Amino acid sequence: MPTEIERKFLVDHAKWAAVTKPVGTVYKQGYILSEEKRTVRIRVAGDAAYITLKGASAGISRSEYEYKIPVSEGEEILDNFAASLIQKTRYNIEHAGNTWEIDVFTGDNTGLILAEIELQHEDEPFEKPLWAGQEVSHDNRYTNASLSVYPYNIWKQA
Amino acid sequence: MPTEIERKFLVDHAKWAAVTKPVGTVYKQGYILSEEKRTVRIRVAGDAAYITLKGASAGISRSEYEYKIPVSEGEEILDNFAASLIQKTRYNIEHAGNTWEIDVFTGDNTGLILAEIELQHEDEPFEKPLWAGQEVSHDNRYTNASLSVYPYNIWKQA
Repeated sequence: MPTEIERKFLVDHAKWAAVTKPVGTVYKQGYILSEEKRTVRIRVAGDAAYITLKGASAGISRSEYEYKIPVSEGEEILDNFAASLIQKTRYNIEHAGNTWEIDVFTGDNTGLILAEIELQHEDEPFEKPLWAGQEVSHDNRYTNASLSVYPYNIWKQA
Repeated sequence: MPTEIERKFLVDHAKWAAVTKPVGTVYKQGYILSEEKRTVRIRVAGDAAYITLKGASAGISRSEYEYKIPVSEGEEILDNFAASLIQKTRYNIEHAGNTWEIDVFTGDNTGLILAEIELQHEDEPFEKPLWAGQEVSHDNRYTNASLSVYPYNIWKQA
């Protein structure tokens, strides 16, 4: 079974602002199903689109099945099947031999910037960049499925 | 948007028994999501597998998006994500210029045989084969999503 092992961190806005960034990709995604143990996500990412199934989390690991679909159909499915959308710009940054994915959220999650690193093993060592702050791998509020229905702007003040 | 227009009929068992059949294909399928307006289905059909999204029905029409996936992953997803399974053997029969799909159900739906014809237009004329009986296009108990959770053997006596 394909498994995703990933760690997630809040990003320090001031330090991130000072980083020389590559061109980002605009992501638009929504959830057709969003349960604790099963999600079905549609993502339109620039000129590509995907349908992705994810299983229950076990620590920082999660089964994941992803299939490419036509962008035009991804857009239609988002319009007709998804309850709410996430919009963000993703930047890929190389750091000390690892690729970090930094998501700068817009819309109802404006103000949130998250950095993720995908690992091969749960205990794999890696070097944290300066702009990566508090780890939130185990805080379910920061999952995209949760952010789509309970966005950052609602709970950040709480 | 891709749309599926289909009509569905009960099959007369005695007349069907007399038909010379082609080789059938064993279908195993389950639902990751089964709501009135949205279903997500995984189907393993012989040596192929698919993930299929269907929207709300409008009469006999329904939006449908289908993508091919690896069989091994289809089997895994059925094992790990689907609540209940449908098993059946499908036969394709040509009749008067149309292809009919005849599903002979097994498991909890044993005893049920359904025939479907896919049309290009809602009012397209077609010739009904001798073995096709009562139309059940509008009876939601005969949808596969419903049969997976409320099988024929439960309600056929009611």
